[in-house]
Amino acid sequence: MKYIDLTHTFDAEMPVYPGDPIPELVQMADLHKEGYTDYQIKTGMHVGTHMDAPLHMLEGGKWLSDIAVEKFIGKGCLIDARGASVVNANFLNKRPAKKGDILLVMTGFSEKYRQPEYYEKYPEIGEDFAGKAIELGVKIVGIDTPSPDRPPFKVHKLLLGKEILIIENLTNLELLIGVSDLDIFALPAKLHTEAAPVRVIAKALGVSVEDLLK
Amino acid sequence: MKYIDLTHTFDAEMPVYPGDPIPELVQMADLHKEGYTDYQIKTGMHVGTHMDAPLHMLEGGKWLSDIAVEKFIGKGCLIDARGASVVNANFLNKRPAKKGDILLVMTGFSEKYRQPEYYEKYPEIGEDFAGKAIELGVKIVGIDTPSPDRPPFKVHKLLLGKEILIIENLTNLELLIGVSDLDIFALPAKLHTEAAPVRVIAKALGVSVEDLLK
Repeated sequence: MKYIDLTHTFDAEMPVYPGDPIPELVQMADLHKEGYTDYQIKTGMHVGTHMDAPLHMLEGGKWLSDIAVEKFIGKGCLIDARGASVVNANFLNKRPAKKGDILLVMTGFSEKYRQPEYYEKYPEIGEDFAGKAIELGVKIVGIDTPSPDRPPFKVHKLLLGKEILIIENLTNLELLIGVSDLDIFALPAKLHTEAAPVRVIAKALGVSVEDLLK
Repeated sequence: MKYIDLTHTFDAEMPVYPGDPIPELVQMADLHKEGYTDYQIKTGMHVGTHMDAPLHMLEGGKWLSDIAVEKFIGKGCLIDARGASVVNANFLNKRPAKKGDILLVMTGFSEKYRQPEYYEKYPEIGEDFAGKAIELGVKIVGIDTPSPDRPPFKVHKLLLGKEILIIENLTNLELLIGVSDLDIFALPAKLHTEAAPVRVIAKALGVSVEDLLK
């Protein structure tokens, strides 16, 4: 059994969605002067690894702080979509998810996180994939890109419309390859907002034979 | 089995440690104008339910983002210290914690969260309690007050010096009374800082006979 962190570190140099304000992380108190260290953050909600609640895209949608905590913990289902420009429903036919699962869509784009290409050329999730995820009854769809789609954000609206939460900017999904039994803990900061930074941790309970042979 | 949220909601009216800057939570984008909702937060790290890492009080102490994720998950041990002005080591003699446990110190002060009294009159944890917690090898000490101590923060320094993390401003601990088997998930936002908002969730696996009779 081991734990794997699927979260980018939020530091003073975070990349943002083009046009969004640049976040600030500044030191306000110093051990030698004030006797303690204290930082201050100023940021929009869609920076780094974060979770979207329905209010982000839907009229009357739930605030993140109103989501029942049961939604944040579940079995993980890794979808290996490396190389695909559109992640379509076939990926869910090949890799059946169960009701209540947390889908982790691995595109491999996390390695470009601090390059302009990351926001310009990311692959998308197809509407048919979203439809199938809804049919299966998953709790969360997470992805290692800035977004599952682009304007007019149909995939966002499909998923959030069914209260399926979205996690963007995941990382380290490659470390889950070959793990046969995964628990996922995706706990967002409890902000009264439409989205917030989320800490995502995987607990790898079982590993595949290939993994054991490494 | 049920989940219980031990986290205060971070809204636009957060109480702060006297003298600290007032946090801001403001809406930057609106569904009708921009097609989506986006809030922005500006805050120090010690507001609401948050976790302190060693860097907060110790020279050369670890940043929160460098703490191994194994530290954030463990069995919970509830210490009922309601009515005590100092939580001393006797509470740990009465209620033995095990190595790797997450201690939750319940003073009942959470109900005063938005009153001035909350920051002025909170009970403290004794140095002997901290010493015993270190001896037992707990991972985290959490409390439903603004701080386990006051300047010069000896309890902070004792615990953080052994890399025992501190959670302040917990809530809902009363809902854990009578639960015999508790898993605690305390996942902080992964900020490159000395502390950060943390989401704390309890999974109540077993309940006591009293609880079943309710």
